[in-house]
Amino acid sequence: MTQIYDRVALIGLGLIASSMSHAMRRAGLAGEIVGYAKSSETRQTAREIGLCDVVYDTAAEAVEGADLVVLCVPVGAMDAVAAEIGPVLMAGATVSDVGSVKRAVVEAVAPHIPEGVHFIPAHPLAGTEHSGPRSGFAELFENRYCIIVPPEGADRTAVDRLAALWRGMGALIEEMDAEHHDLVLAVTSHTPHLIAYTMVGVADDLSRVTDSEVIKFSAAGFRDFTRIAASDPVMWRDVFLNNKEATLEILGRFTEELFALQRAIRQGDGDHLHAYFTRTRSIRRGIIEAGQDTDAPNFGRASVKKQ
Amino acid sequence: MTQIYDRVALIGLGLIASSMSHAMRRAGLAGEIVGYAKSSETRQTAREIGLCDVVYDTAAEAVEGADLVVLCVPVGAMDAVAAEIGPVLMAGATVSDVGSVKRAVVEAVAPHIPEGVHFIPAHPLAGTEHSGPRSGFAELFENRYCIIVPPEGADRTAVDRLAALWRGMGALIEEMDAEHHDLVLAVTSHTPHLIAYTMVGVADDLSRVTDSEVIKFSAAGFRDFTRIAASDPVMWRDVFLNNKEATLEILGRFTEELFALQRAIRQGDGDHLHAYFTRTRSIRRGIIEAGQDTDAPNFGRASVKKQ
Repeated sequence: MTQIYDRVALIGLGLIASSMSHAMRRAGLAGEIVGYAKSSETRQTAREIGLCDVVYDTAAEAVEGADLVVLCVPVGAMDAVAAEIGPVLMAGATVSDVGSVKRAVVEAVAPHIPEGVHFIPAHPLAGTEHSGPRSGFAELFENRYCIIVPPEGADRTAVDRLAALWRGMGALIEEMDAEHHDLVLAVTSHTPHLIAYTMVGVADDLSRVTDSEVIKFSAAGFRDFTRIAASDPVMWRDVFLNNKEATLEILGRFTEELFALQRAIRQGDGDHLHAYFTRTRSIRRGIIEAGQDTDAPNFGRASVKKQ
Repeated sequence: MTQIYDRVALIGLGLIASSMSHAMRRAGLAGEIVGYAKSSETRQTAREIGLCDVVYDTAAEAVEGADLVVLCVPVGAMDAVAAEIGPVLMAGATVSDVGSVKRAVVEAVAPHIPEGVHFIPAHPLAGTEHSGPRSGFAELFENRYCIIVPPEGADRTAVDRLAALWRGMGALIEEMDAEHHDLVLAVTSHTPHLIAYTMVGVADDLSRVTDSEVIKFSAAGFRDFTRIAASDPVMWRDVFLNNKEATLEILGRFTEELFALQRAIRQGDGDHLHAYFTRTRSIRRGIIEAGQDTDAPNFGRASVKKQ
């Protein structure tokens, strides 16, 4: 594949950045990949495993001469890191990010971007429950969507170039505005994560059922929730603090529906329950047909083999 | 392995019964396996794929001469099927079931069991999102728990014999009373399923986000919920109608916790969120260490390979 950027600077070296590095290298998309992480331990690990060509001790050094800078830090850290790198960004460079919310990131980062630098926010909808520089792998973005959120008046060539990079890493591209992105993600990601965290918390708290029982009997459904409830706590704290409005709206709808089902249970309204449970099957089918999940039983978990 | 029962009658031929048939055959646990299903289509399919040695057109015929009868029908159908087979059960036989709730099953079935027949309810905590006689596979119960709920005064030899059958199919055995079972399952299974159904319903309803968007962007977390929300609607309707009390109790705790997190989001209380999200990681670790889930990213879904 053709090289798309000469020097890519990854700011933050967690799951997404490390996967980007593997994916860019595999496809030869970047001349050079450099990086920076706030924690010296993370920088040390990244150096040990050769994650980047160079790992710098400051973000400012890392972005020097980079024609693409990707902010891969928790949403709450975007403001400070943008303030630090703003003055040293190369003219003509593109600054992007991988944050899970977009309106707050635009508000935090845009003011620090100098004239002549393109700011093109993006969000790859991919991840696992693992975190840190060792958790990345080149296939993470394959057949997953990357949502690009170009600001009004964004340079088309710069947007297309960023899209080409993500396509080169295996992603499918969609464009939308920041507000719609935040609503879509509140439904498909943020509220599900909050609910999963809550359910796991409830199970952990219930004194009449021991943790050991919860663990042993988790295959009855509960374990599906624990995967996303094991995701990076800092990242998720920042998501909820920065997508407050949309998350609270979806949560409101969620509790409304849950109360309706709760009432149906209390009143013994089997028809209501049956109709509801039937309707939700078609969404699963759609997801499988769209290649966004596997049809193998139990997600094809290692221990479950179909004859 | 040694044969444990001479003639096992499976009443109902869905995912659990068909998996039992495969698992019993693989290990040589039953001399003969016969079956019955209410739907003629299911009986036809079972005959086509040779699921049992004989598939009968009535439950009464199927249980004749069986030393083990396993009721594998939705919880709401237990009463009628027990009434039908009660008069023809063989003296000394064991009747068991695989229902997801236990108190209601005991109440429905026990009155129909004649003197001299052992009634030993059980619940294998295993399943997939697929249903029907073709969905079974021999490995379903491997390393999964089967909870046996012996009534007071149950014959120890009969209980141990049933436990040996489940062990022979690969399951781990626990014993507890029906009430505790129903509470444990409300936490580890019933409430998670209801929440998953609700979340999928909310996503389906939200007019500003299209179904196509929900499907395309589901890898951001939502798709984990759709698996259990694709489970058999009749089975789940019956679970909620028959484990009302415990489910409503856990739902009450769930909404209480959810409201606390919702308030933390509204008030921007990042410390509360971070502390909550950190705590829930240890349960995941426990589940993986107990061999109840895989540590591979994203459940080791087919499309996700680690380098």
